[in-house]
Amino acid sequence: MSDSTTICAISTPAGTGGIAVVRLSGPEAIVIADKIFQSPAKGKRLSDQAANTLHFGSVVKGREILDEVVAGIFREPHSYTGEDVVEISCHGSLYVQQQILELLIDSGAELAQPGEFTQRAFLNGKMDLSQAEAVADLIASGNSAAHRVALNQMRAGFSVELGLLRAQLLHFITLIELELDFSEEDVEFADRTQLITISRKAAVLIRKLADSFRLGNVIKNGIPVAIVGETNVGKSTLLNALLNEEKAIVSDIHGTTRDVIEDVVNLDGVLFRFFDTAGLRHTTEPIESMGIERSYRKLEQASVVLLVLDLTSSEESILTRIAEIRKKIKGQKLILVGNKSDLASDEILKNLSGLPLKKDESLVFISARSKENLTGLIKQMQSAISMEKVQPEDVVVTNIRHYEALTKALEAIERTIVGLQSNISGEFLSQDIRECLHYLGSITGQITTDEVLGNIFKHFCIGK
Amino acid sequence: MSDSTTICAISTPAGTGGIAVVRLSGPEAIVIADKIFQSPAKGKRLSDQAANTLHFGSVVKGREILDEVVAGIFREPHSYTGEDVVEISCHGSLYVQQQILELLIDSGAELAQPGEFTQRAFLNGKMDLSQAEAVADLIASGNSAAHRVALNQMRAGFSVELGLLRAQLLHFITLIELELDFSEEDVEFADRTQLITISRKAAVLIRKLADSFRLGNVIKNGIPVAIVGETNVGKSTLLNALLNEEKAIVSDIHGTTRDVIEDVVNLDGVLFRFFDTAGLRHTTEPIESMGIERSYRKLEQASVVLLVLDLTSSEESILTRIAEIRKKIKGQKLILVGNKSDLASDEILKNLSGLPLKKDESLVFISARSKENLTGLIKQMQSAISMEKVQPEDVVVTNIRHYEALTKALEAIERTIVGLQSNISGEFLSQDIRECLHYLGSITGQITTDEVLGNIFKHFCIGK
Repeated sequence: MSDSTTICAISTPAGTGGIAVVRLSGPEAIVIADKIFQSPAKGKRLSDQAANTLHFGSVVKGREILDEVVAGIFREPHSYTGEDVVEISCHGSLYVQQQILELLIDSGAELAQPGEFTQRAFLNGKMDLSQAEAVADLIASGNSAAHRVALNQMRAGFSVELGLLRAQLLHFITLIELELDFSEEDVEFADRTQLITISRKAAVLIRKLADSFRLGNVIKNGIPVAIVGETNVGKSTLLNALLNEEKAIVSDIHGTTRDVIEDVVNLDGVLFRFFDTAGLRHTTEPIESMGIERSYRKLEQASVVLLVLDLTSSEESILTRIAEIRKKIKGQKLILVGNKSDLASDEILKNLSGLPLKKDESLVFISARSKENLTGLIKQMQSAISMEKVQPEDVVVTNIRHYEALTKALEAIERTIVGLQSNISGEFLSQDIRECLHYLGSITGQITTDEVLGNIFKHFCIGK
Repeated sequence: MSDSTTICAISTPAGTGGIAVVRLSGPEAIVIADKIFQSPAKGKRLSDQAANTLHFGSVVKGREILDEVVAGIFREPHSYTGEDVVEISCHGSLYVQQQILELLIDSGAELAQPGEFTQRAFLNGKMDLSQAEAVADLIASGNSAAHRVALNQMRAGFSVELGLLRAQLLHFITLIELELDFSEEDVEFADRTQLITISRKAAVLIRKLADSFRLGNVIKNGIPVAIVGETNVGKSTLLNALLNEEKAIVSDIHGTTRDVIEDVVNLDGVLFRFFDTAGLRHTTEPIESMGIERSYRKLEQASVVLLVLDLTSSEESILTRIAEIRKKIKGQKLILVGNKSDLASDEILKNLSGLPLKKDESLVFISARSKENLTGLIKQMQSAISMEKVQPEDVVVTNIRHYEALTKALEAIERTIVGLQSNISGEFLSQDIRECLHYLGSITGQITTDEVLGNIFKHFCIGK
């Protein structure tokens, strides 16, 4: 159980609105609310009211009425935090919100830390740690795929699968450690064949989850797209045309280095993150050279590479560019974007259309200036990662903390399998399985440190 | 009663937060909520639940779960609008808020207009028009005095007093109009002496309310303060020092003309609106002359004039400035601000301290640069309008629509009194009293037009 303080915070978005909600949680929540709440029905107290009920009344500061409100009462354990909770729905003026908060603090409540309500829900066993983390993702989610994945995780996600796995591994480790107690008698309580089967199943599941992170990361942060090509082929025009698509929601993300600005665009429900790259061409200028170096590094981080080609230039130079970029591509989807299609000769369009394409390559003709066939290009970009595959029931890892823990758990379980095959001693087996359990447990929060918890919840908004 | 549609809107402030509230109101509110709400208890429907209760469940779009929410149910007439109301408390992501709203609209609700919930509360007799207007003021209020006045008005305000007055006048007008029906018989049902007494009482009350508008306006919009003085006496330094006071909340209000910017500052809970004025000094330059002209016009709009004086300049020039400004002052509070007190000679401080002051004048020595005695200056400024006089029970008119109606009602009741004294015919009397009743009724909404209502509610935020 969490500590015995009662916390309060404004839970609705910051600012002025029709109404705002101030939330109280803790053993004294209802008692403290009663200190500032006055019902029009004389003598009526919130403490005497049933759970899950709503009550109209005033918030009073001494004899002065501060606002007319509705108080909602939840009683432990049937609340978000698992504690007694009061939600005061007041008028949405900044002044009123602030005054009610101050009044609650004067009446014995403490101002909640970011994410403290959710942290208490975790500490009180209302949700595991991966679910708690999903609450923050859910609130931050800005598109349907990110929202769906976060909601899945919040509603159980891989907690159930990981829970079953841990239970099986725990069962075996108990048997193996029992063997160690009887080591002089050389008994085997744990069936090695069965253990190999289970370890392999575990490895498959953990690998599946870890692999889903590539998709999860893309869903959460956008598909990384690098736009490359010679100068003056229309890279900026293309980027601007995509940013101006009717449905696009554009935002700037400033990178860690000053000269890298990324544009994040929501195109038909899929997030794309465009890298601003320097023009790619041969140069002996050292400064420009550095820019091109950076472009190629960016290329490696991209899932999709758009090579923009100027269809009004010579066929030879176009084929040279394609040959050059193919050498740099390592598994990314390459889209050859023939730009200025409205100005191109029929001959070059025909010749390029006949170009043999490799796996994961495609070719589209567009005119960035007159916005021709942008839809075709977007469709190609979307096919790079099949977002439509994300089903409501799918389990996708989006959290890098989870991904890292899964990767370490996978290493440990793979060592276990190798160990079992080479018949290593129970002592070493036990050590590997324990390590796997540790990392799996750290995801759902069976194993945590205050530092880990602090890091997770400090990124929450206050009031959740 | 209002029309039979069911409206919905996001009622909490725009943006991302821990939670957000989507509100539904109308005859179909609970039925529509049931279409998108799914309880974990199988077969449980919101329609079957008691009023004023809270229910955990999911918002579903077809078979997909969109969010986990808590739904609060209010049943007519015991709700804010007087209709059935459902408040859905969801996760505060923009995506979730928008999706739930779209789902409700797809399920038969209409997007609410700004203020439509409050307009319905008015139309359903939950509050009169002046109370409804106070809701918007309450939400916008940024300091304790503005909040207190708005809350008073929302909780009844002058509605009760105006109601009693209207009832008395209506009683008399009935009697007078009865006389007109029996005009050939020359009877007097309405006691003229009593009518004079009541009309005089009415005039006193209406005048009191109309007079309170000066205070009300100041509470709502800030005390207008003009800072004047020669160039280089430290006007800007003083303004900046005041704006930087720890407790000051600063905002810029751009005036109607491009060159006038007003700074609104909350100093110890009192709003001040500072006018940016050109330096005041004799000049023959036509352009600067215009600036000075404007300064003097601004002076007339101010309640407080700060004449900033440079204590390091000659005593003679200081006394000249004071003599000049006194000629321009018409009822405003004049504060003589001796600046650069840290650099001033003892002699000038002593001589100025001995200066005879007129009523509504005061003198403070400060150093704007080293922020000396700013508190003393602020105290003097606050005393210009005694905000501390605003008691929780005080009725103060803050709305210009009310002020204008009160002014016209006052004219009508004053004509009634004169008419009664000069024994005019019942017909004319009736006309004047009817006019007074009309204007009083327009304040609380007994008499309104769609245009008036439209104008009032379009300034509300959506969701209230």
